[in-house]
Amino acid sequence: MPIWTSEAVDIDCPDLTHQLRKRLLHYRGINVAEDEILVTVGAQHALCIISTLFADDERPIAFEDPGYQEARHLFHLYRNRIAPVPVDGSGIDTRQLPVEYKLVYTTPGCQFPSMVNLSEDRRDELLRAAERADAFVIEDDYEVGLLGHEKPISALKARDQNDRVIYIGSLSKTLSPSIRMGFIVAHRDIIKAAKIVRSLTVRHPPSIVQETTALFLAHGYHDVHLNKLRETYSQRWHIMRTGIERHLPMFSRGQATGGTSFWIAGPDHFDARKFAQQLQKRGVLIEPGHIFFHEGTPKNTFRIGFPSVATAKIDDGLQIIGEEAQMNLI
Amino acid sequence: MPIWTSEAVDIDCPDLTHQLRKRLLHYRGINVAEDEILVTVGAQHALCIISTLFADDERPIAFEDPGYQEARHLFHLYRNRIAPVPVDGSGIDTRQLPVEYKLVYTTPGCQFPSMVNLSEDRRDELLRAAERADAFVIEDDYEVGLLGHEKPISALKARDQNDRVIYIGSLSKTLSPSIRMGFIVAHRDIIKAAKIVRSLTVRHPPSIVQETTALFLAHGYHDVHLNKLRETYSQRWHIMRTGIERHLPMFSRGQATGGTSFWIAGPDHFDARKFAQQLQKRGVLIEPGHIFFHEGTPKNTFRIGFPSVATAKIDDGLQIIGEEAQMNLI
Repeated sequence: MPIWTSEAVDIDCPDLTHQLRKRLLHYRGINVAEDEILVTVGAQHALCIISTLFADDERPIAFEDPGYQEARHLFHLYRNRIAPVPVDGSGIDTRQLPVEYKLVYTTPGCQFPSMVNLSEDRRDELLRAAERADAFVIEDDYEVGLLGHEKPISALKARDQNDRVIYIGSLSKTLSPSIRMGFIVAHRDIIKAAKIVRSLTVRHPPSIVQETTALFLAHGYHDVHLNKLRETYSQRWHIMRTGIERHLPMFSRGQATGGTSFWIAGPDHFDARKFAQQLQKRGVLIEPGHIFFHEGTPKNTFRIGFPSVATAKIDDGLQIIGEEAQMNLI
Repeated sequence: MPIWTSEAVDIDCPDLTHQLRKRLLHYRGINVAEDEILVTVGAQHALCIISTLFADDERPIAFEDPGYQEARHLFHLYRNRIAPVPVDGSGIDTRQLPVEYKLVYTTPGCQFPSMVNLSEDRRDELLRAAERADAFVIEDDYEVGLLGHEKPISALKARDQNDRVIYIGSLSKTLSPSIRMGFIVAHRDIIKAAKIVRSLTVRHPPSIVQETTALFLAHGYHDVHLNKLRETYSQRWHIMRTGIERHLPMFSRGQATGGTSFWIAGPDHFDARKFAQQLQKRGVLIEPGHIFFHEGTPKNTFRIGFPSVATAKIDDGLQIIGEEAQMNLI
């Protein structure tokens, strides 16, 4: 039954949860019941709910370092302590998890901002560690369906035998960030508690957004759009890689094999903030990487995103970055 | 410029804020600039933002008793202390405000759940008291435009010379609760801070909801709908009052002259919860009043709402309430 105009505090649009399960979650290898999904006002709201839900637990939140700074700010806002955990070419370093923690925030599909895939071994270790610590793993699958990795890996949630994973997905990267459509997948007890926090924060996500999104998915428009996006992004990713090898030999690139941005490091003394300012004058935008680090350092990394750069302009942009880098005597 | 598909963390839909100012705020006597309004995911989200924003201030939140329980729960969720302040026939009793408080939560237009108007004297005193205490007044104008009082009074915000009032409005009661359209009106410094909290909680309210609501308002549909609602509710209110006098002489009714529900009290020993259960068996729903009180007592009050009761059925319903009351030997 559609819920276009009625209040919907207790129940999400059934067509929407059906479509999310069928079109997005199955694709990510996740098979859950309807009462294990909760619709939110975008992924940020999902994080807000979890941040609030676990605020009373004194243990820290283990957090990828570098990691998604908006999540870190949100956890701080609700007085959660953060325990940074280093990231390497295989993703979050599970050997360096703290002894005690309530949650570990991760982006296994495409570590943000380094874009590496969490290795198979680390995935298993992460789940075992959470079980030992009596903690939960937040899997922020922010690029759901977009990964473009040569060998796509199912979500961590897909191998979660003990309900330790709280999965967060959204349509922001594939459909539009403006509709604010996100969702949490977790054990039904967590979903039940999350629904109470949701009702206190916004009562429920707008019904009109739920119903229109359900229709958009049901008619297959999202699948078609997603395939086009994947094709475009995959093409751009390869142009980026080739261009970086050609124009930016003075920098080192991470080991990522997919994602919608590249994570680049300069020599130790390199200041990416200054570099970003210089590039901006020439019409090229890069994102200095220090903001993703717990301590705000090092300063020598930056991120180049390409979803909003026309394919034909990518190589020119990289050439400008290379020219500026040479002038800076890197 | 419409923002249908773009992310809108920093700016709200300009057409929407224009329409809210022109069609709703001016009607309530409020004239503010665009940077003094912030759109939220319904009034609950507005309260969530304020609750978060003031959480670090150790002083309590003064709170109408009885009062809107969802706001009380929300303030508790974010660790704010509550100082209950009694309500009488003139609204919140400003003489009983605590010495220290950071916020006072009020519903001046139509005190919830007693439905009384905050008197002129109390309005002035509330603003003076807030100035003395260096505190802010939350004006939850939840029935914006619907009041139906014989002598409508402008919003408290309209007489706020010192930017002490944080006004909250929504379209939930007039248009639909399902769209989750709310807004905060306050000093631009508060709006600026609120926008940061908003971005951390949901990033921004869905653009599609902002744009469709702006269009709905701009075309005058909301005005027309509001006038119809006012007419219907005013008619029902008078039928309710007449029916209560006829069928419920064993109860006492508050001094409200408007609103969309009636606040009724039985004798001291009367148990409204049991009474509600009995009435439910006969197909009549009332809301026991203890949930609105800080301490969960007294138990002898209840609320009868009429927005979702057909006009023709009101008198029959009241008659059933009267019959049941007589059988309970009240």
